[in-house]
Order: sequence, then C-alpha cells, then structure tokens
Amino acid sequence: MASLKLAVLISGRGSNLQSLIDACAEESFPAEIVTVISNVHGVKGLERAHKAGLPTVVIDHKEFKDRENFEDALHDVISGAGADLVCLAGFMRLLTGDFVRRWQDCLINIHPSLLPAFKGLHVHEKVLEAGARFSGCTVHYVRPDMDSGPIIVQAAVPVHGDDTPDTLATRILEQEHRIYPLAVRLIASGRVRVENERVIIDGAVAPDAGMINPAED
Amino acid sequence: MASLKLAVLISGRGSNLQSLIDACAEESFPAEIVTVISNVHGVKGLERAHKAGLPTVVIDHKEFKDRENFEDALHDVISGAGADLVCLAGFMRLLTGDFVRRWQDCLINIHPSLLPAFKGLHVHEKVLEAGARFSGCTVHYVRPDMDSGPIIVQAAVPVHGDDTPDTLATRILEQEHRIYPLAVRLIASGRVRVENERVIIDGAVAPDAGMINPAED
Repeated sequence: MASLKLAVLISGRGSNLQSLIDACAEESFPAEIVTVISNVHGVKGLERAHKAGLPTVVIDHKEFKDRENFEDALHDVISGAGADLVCLAGFMRLLTGDFVRRWQDCLINIHPSLLPAFKGLHVHEKVLEAGARFSGCTVHYVRPDMDSGPIIVQAAVPVHGDDTPDTLATRILEQEHRIYPLAVRLIASGRVRVENERVIIDGAVAPDAGMINPAED
Repeated sequence: MASLKLAVLISGRGSNLQSLIDACAEESFPAEIVTVISNVHGVKGLERAHKAGLPTVVIDHKEFKDRENFEDALHDVISGAGADLVCLAGFMRLLTGDFVRRWQDCLINIHPSLLPAFKGLHVHEKVLEAGARFSGCTVHYVRPDMDSGPIIVQAAVPVHGDDTPDTLATRILEQEHRIYPLAVRLIASGRVRVENERVIIDGAVAPDAGMINPAED
C-alpha cells in the first residue's frame, strides 16, 4: 500500500506533531509527513520537524492582507507538497468554510475534549468548572463550524478531585499522542468512511468499559 | 452511623429504584428507603416496591389543579415519611425552582449521559447522531435548570459502531445501576460536600483510564 502523505499544520510546541513524527518513523506505519507548516516563526514544533529532517514552511498570517490570501498560500503549499491529508496539530488559526470545503474529508483536527462537549478554548477550565468526572480528546474531520465534524477516534480519561487545568491537560495530552497516530493509521489503511456525516470504521473493535469515577476506596 | 432515609420518586418501570432496593438490602448499606412515590398509577416500579415490602404512595399530578399544589403534596409526603434524601429515579415531571430549592442538596437525579453533554430527552439518539465514541451516566444534585447541578458520580461506556439507541441504553443502564447506589452510599457516609457548586468527595480514588475507541484490532 502506498504511504499516505501528510501535511501537519502547527502554531506552537508541536507535541502532537511529535507523536506523528514518531509514528511515521515506524517502518510499518502507512503514512509519512511531507511538509510541516507553521503560521508562527520560531516555534518549538519547527525545531522538532528540523530534527526529524522534515521540510518546513512558515506562512505567517500577518504577512497577508486577508484571510483568503493567507489560505490560498496555505492551500498552494499543501498541494505543492503532494499531501493527501492535512492534520491540524495545535494550529491556532480558524479556517474559512472555503478552505475547509476544498479539503473536505482530507482535513482532520485533534481537540482536547470529548466532543461535542466542551468546544472552543480553555477546555480544561470549563471541564473542571462543570465538575465533569470524565474528559478526553477527539480526532475529527474538520467542518466549517469550530470543533465540529465527524468523529474518528476518542479517548476518555478520568478527572481527579484535585486536578488543575494543567494536570488534566497533561493526562489528556498523553491520550492525544495515542489517538492522533491511530486515527491517521486508520485513514491511511483505508478503513475510515464518512457516511451521513458519521464515521464508519471497518473492522473496529470497541473496548469494554464501564469506568466509574470516583472509584470506591 | 444512623441510616440515611430515602424517598425514591418514579414514573415507570423503576429499574434504578430496584438497584437502590437491592443496595439497601445489604446489611452494611448506610441507607434505607422510607417511601416510594409515583406520579403514575399501576407502573412496574410500584410492584417492585410492594415486592420489597416498601410503603408506596401515588400522587397523580393530573389530580391537582396546578404544579404548585402537586408539589406541595409531594413535599408533604416526603417530609411526612421522614426522608433525608430525595432520589429521582425516572421521575418524569419537571420540578419547579421552589421545590428544588426546598430540597437543596437533598435531592439527586440520575441522567443517562455524561453531563453536561446531552441534556434532556432522547439522549441516546442524540449521542449516536453526534457520532460520540463514549457516553455514560451521571448522578447529580438537582438544580432548577434541567439536568444541571453538581455532579456526584459518573460512569463512562464506549459507544459501538453498530449501536442502536436501545443497545446503548442497555449498556448505560447497567452502569446506572452501579452508580446510583454508589452515590447514595457516598452521601450517606458523609463523604460528599458541595462547595461553590462542585462536589467534593472525601477520600475518593479515581480509577486510571485512557480508554480508546475504536480499539485497534
């Protein structure tokens, strides 16, 4: 099977980029990163890409007169790199409906909550505020509405009584680093279909569960 | 420790009532049911209560000229039975802010989703429609807004690719029957406090987790 070509878009430290770099380094992984694009100069994620020997491009949105021009440049770089799938990995620019539709079902994102719960920013603060006992993360196809779109993979984690936004973020990030490569692998293996705006995964086996939080002593 | 006295309010089959009956039958369980109240005649839950030798009362809301009168009767029966804690268990009448405030922090409910996600009716349909990979159930203190209020216990379950609302409901119900008695036990043991509209549970140990759905083969 040919390797799926990924464009990874970042704006910061790129820890999810790193999980994809690590996955792609495994010989059996059915995808490879063909370009890493940042809209911010000098971020840690670019360093990670350089260290892995990956081509990088900085497309600074502030250098464009409007969102459309910025996205045209983005589109040209992604296409020029021959990418099949665009992976948003902490990319902090909202994309327009036009861009999203151009990459329909070829554009995925990771969000640190169990969508559709807790969209937007400051997720972990909102989870703690709500007193939720579980949170998690979601890889989903991108649609024009923020943090919406067909869900590919989710992971759930418990929220502890003494959690701060930071400790919860750390616990969830660990799962993000598991599910983003998993989602890419499922897509690259041709096992993911979108039907009626829901994802069907061929041959997926769901785990048993029944976690309770808080546990009894 | 004295036994916490429960009033359980039902409108139907009373499967969550049954889980409380079964829990209270254990000698070490720190609560007992002092009254089972239904707003509907002839439902299965009343049979369950009779079979367990519990006093039952039917307060048919249709026999009252308004909601306030109905709730006054409800209040009188609950108070008259000496209940410390009111447990809604499939009770299908919305309660007014007045009633809820009279029983502030002494009134709990169980809802078949991971609140604050998926409030209201037709929960499982909505979960499947959203393509969520996890759902669950929540025991929470009741507040005037529907399906809101401090969360006491939640359980999470996976959503399977071939789930129907019924199969998902069955999987979640199994967890409801675990967490409702657990929540009552925690409260009856004096371990639950509400601070700034969040529940603090003394000595709770959260389980480790990190469930991923779908699992790899």
